[in-house]
Amino acid sequence: MTDQKGVTVWFTGLSGAGKTTVAKKIEELLEKENFRVERLDGDIVRTYLTRDLGFSREDRDENIYRNSFVAFLLTRNGVITLCSFISPYRKARKKARKLIGNFIEVYVNAPLEVCRDRDIKGLYARAVAGEIPQFTGITDPYEHPVNPEIELRTDRETVEESAAKVISYLKDHSFIQLKL
Amino acid sequence: MTDQKGVTVWFTGLSGAGKTTVAKKIEELLEKENFRVERLDGDIVRTYLTRDLGFSREDRDENIYRNSFVAFLLTRNGVITLCSFISPYRKARKKARKLIGNFIEVYVNAPLEVCRDRDIKGLYARAVAGEIPQFTGITDPYEHPVNPEIELRTDRETVEESAAKVISYLKDHSFIQLKL
Repeated sequence: MTDQKGVTVWFTGLSGAGKTTVAKKIEELLEKENFRVERLDGDIVRTYLTRDLGFSREDRDENIYRNSFVAFLLTRNGVITLCSFISPYRKARKKARKLIGNFIEVYVNAPLEVCRDRDIKGLYARAVAGEIPQFTGITDPYEHPVNPEIELRTDRETVEESAAKVISYLKDHSFIQLKL
Repeated sequence: MTDQKGVTVWFTGLSGAGKTTVAKKIEELLEKENFRVERLDGDIVRTYLTRDLGFSREDRDENIYRNSFVAFLLTRNGVITLCSFISPYRKARKKARKLIGNFIEVYVNAPLEVCRDRDIKGLYARAVAGEIPQFTGITDPYEHPVNPEIELRTDRETVEESAAKVISYLKDHSFIQLKL
């Protein structure tokens, strides 16, 4: 793949909304077509970049800040960078967009009740039990995107449908050329 | 430039040895030939990645750790990544090498007296005056590379000569093809 245009696809949404699941599906589809793709999410970066950070507003902002810088470097080197972070604050996302430039905000939207019922990592149960003091959607705010480039409704769409929406957007905006 | 092979060129040495100066010269030469190049050094990353870190051994290790991760991502996406960090500890450099893979250690060597006399940033004067408590070469150790891929003697070579050594190495090891 030559002369690939870099872009960051930024998935924001509640824990359990499906950010990483959709990003993984897109990664799989793009890698099959030999695009250079990197996926960044909490589990990946925590070991190296952000292990000192907790969940205060300050730490969350710092988390987004560091990851934005990495996404910025990858993007300007032609990498399609898939970032999955709750990133609950509008201001932090706006700052990320400004730094990165080619930035597609994807609101991974599923109602809180759906996310709570899924509770794949058992985090909502712990949050409700008061074991996690600052949990987005329960005891901490989530500021949903006002005008995202893409909105996914993961409570009504399959993972494949959600991924296809993003792929279509990338095609329509000439970030990728392929027959997917 | 298509199908570029990624590599990290890691410049280690005392403050004032010329790490950044040589890296900038190489960056200039490679960008002229349209290679994808990123340069990481303290001044660049401090704003985004490492502003919380000081100069204890622990913080220095953490600094190298975070930057290694970024260099690793860039390298595996085909970017020539020029890292200039004092990186005084062998163990941390070894860890960086292991993570990154394509890794060229460049020992930017100038005698302490030369670096101290240059004292471009006025840091040695402050360190000697006791204003900077942990300063590599003065009150903190520098573990020089035992078997670096390249050694530069910036007290005897011009910047151009030092840069040419690195460029030659990159050519000889097929990281770049060009007529520089």
